[in-house]
Amino acid sequence: MPELRKDPVIGRWVIIATERGARPTDFKSAPQVISRGFCPFCEGNEDKTPPEIVAIRDYGNRDTKGWRVRVVSNKFPALQIEGGLDKRGEGIYDLMRGVGAHEVIIETPEHVTSLTSLSVAQIDEVLTMYSDRLNDLKKDKRFAYGLVFKNVGSIAGASLEHTHSQLIVTPVVPITVSREMGGCREFFDYRGRCLMCDMLKQETSNGGRVVIDGDQYVSFEPFASRFPFETWILPKKHRSHFEVVPHDELGELADVLRESLVRIESALENPPYNYIIHSAPFTVQDLEFYHWHIEIIPRLTKVAGFEWGTGFYINPVPPEKAAEFLRGVEK
Amino acid sequence: MPELRKDPVIGRWVIIATERGARPTDFKSAPQVISRGFCPFCEGNEDKTPPEIVAIRDYGNRDTKGWRVRVVSNKFPALQIEGGLDKRGEGIYDLMRGVGAHEVIIETPEHVTSLTSLSVAQIDEVLTMYSDRLNDLKKDKRFAYGLVFKNVGSIAGASLEHTHSQLIVTPVVPITVSREMGGCREFFDYRGRCLMCDMLKQETSNGGRVVIDGDQYVSFEPFASRFPFETWILPKKHRSHFEVVPHDELGELADVLRESLVRIESALENPPYNYIIHSAPFTVQDLEFYHWHIEIIPRLTKVAGFEWGTGFYINPVPPEKAAEFLRGVEK
Repeated sequence: MPELRKDPVIGRWVIIATERGARPTDFKSAPQVISRGFCPFCEGNEDKTPPEIVAIRDYGNRDTKGWRVRVVSNKFPALQIEGGLDKRGEGIYDLMRGVGAHEVIIETPEHVTSLTSLSVAQIDEVLTMYSDRLNDLKKDKRFAYGLVFKNVGSIAGASLEHTHSQLIVTPVVPITVSREMGGCREFFDYRGRCLMCDMLKQETSNGGRVVIDGDQYVSFEPFASRFPFETWILPKKHRSHFEVVPHDELGELADVLRESLVRIESALENPPYNYIIHSAPFTVQDLEFYHWHIEIIPRLTKVAGFEWGTGFYINPVPPEKAAEFLRGVEK
Repeated sequence: MPELRKDPVIGRWVIIATERGARPTDFKSAPQVISRGFCPFCEGNEDKTPPEIVAIRDYGNRDTKGWRVRVVSNKFPALQIEGGLDKRGEGIYDLMRGVGAHEVIIETPEHVTSLTSLSVAQIDEVLTMYSDRLNDLKKDKRFAYGLVFKNVGSIAGASLEHTHSQLIVTPVVPITVSREMGGCREFFDYRGRCLMCDMLKQETSNGGRVVIDGDQYVSFEPFASRFPFETWILPKKHRSHFEVVPHDELGELADVLRESLVRIESALENPPYNYIIHSAPFTVQDLEFYHWHIEIIPRLTKVAGFEWGTGFYINPVPPEKAAEFLRGVEK
């Protein structure tokens, strides 16, 4: 069973995930690269993954061909679904059992390596699946938070190249989420307005950092971008939770997400990247001060000693220049 | 001039360092690897670095041969030493000029690639130089914080292989430092004791996570290690600032640091790593609640979407196993 341990200094949680089977000597070798051979995510290999949780299907039964989007448990889960939390102390330290969920969303039965190879309609189904899974897992009262994210490329933490996303549900609200909510609440308390709604107004009226200004969503390079070509997608309509967005509003999101990624892939020649859906915890209702959004992080620079020691980031590309470059991409 | 921009969501600062000369297209290519050819840090190439700030010398003048440890400005500084901060706003955003210092400590005139190739006496001089530089820069009232760190290996952010460390001085207290201080202060307010002093007692009496238990310093794997083989070195004597440690107490630190790194390099076959000196800001006097220390982070696992989105880390090696493994290394 994995264990959740709390760092007593800044309250950050760590998952000690021994079930992943690593021995100390496993770390001697070079970082793993993505296998180019057999792919367990391809149609026809359904018996090579953990059992299917749910799928969008044209035909067929669970764990057979005929699906368009398929969700399975992660084969090496960071957290496990069964059991209670068993919160306890060990001297000055706090820990609990590593209870949660860790799922993989396989975005297409075909062996393609980028989400952008899919149509907007296909990406719409992927986003709808994110939403459905979050709404399902939210019913379990042991769970506090659900994070949907995507790792692309070995440097960004991917271990399989077949396009997929992941969902991890944790029994505590993660520290990054609490801090984001804290910052947004402070702004709201002081000015009575949502920080991200203000940000949207400033960005769209200025325009210098905007990549795509859609009807319902804006894609832009944030003012204090940590990384070159860091891109955020904000919905114009204020909501705190991604999973309450009506399905018919996910179509344009699919479009804006796809086009943002196409521009990044074209400008930077298919860089490794992560994207992360930032959304409010399961444990709270609609919040006036928090605004869900997506952050896309191309992994072009290294996180080194300075970043670890300070939380400061050094970004050699001003977001205004990155936005100009992305807007100018020939698609 | 570099610019410091504040993320309005969680108050994190970012250095937009355009002086580093990157164009958007520079990021198309693969990450830079360490040059194996000409080395500007080797003895005899003193004219290939920015001018010497200070050195420990056997003979010779500034920017000539004869030095043992040499400090120069970083050729591509993240922050620049001249001028005022010019703090200002831009709508909802805050920014200031990127004023600070960015120095490189070249640890030996010989072309060796690991600190562990140096003797304890040589490392003692390197640590003494860290302390001297911090004490010198601290006199400048524009500066709030000084961070000493080391990047080893391309993955960990190094761009030259000749063993060296860096020092960056910032005009604001970095967010990671504030959070660490906040956590330690909370513990102190509640229990009236220093968290790290308590940690030292628990670790040395339990022993399971200890790697080296010296007279003045303890090297151990922290309870909530974010990374496999993460190793902290804590001084037994409580002080909040590294730079006030008397020089005659740096000898054993050199010894414990060297041996910790020798064990990590041997166990993991010379992994990339960072180490960072965590110390209290220039702007405060002796603090009862904060305890300076060194954190060593081998860079074996990837920081992926989950870590970026949550601040949670997934560590596949329990610190107890890592400590056992490091204690058992044949040196």
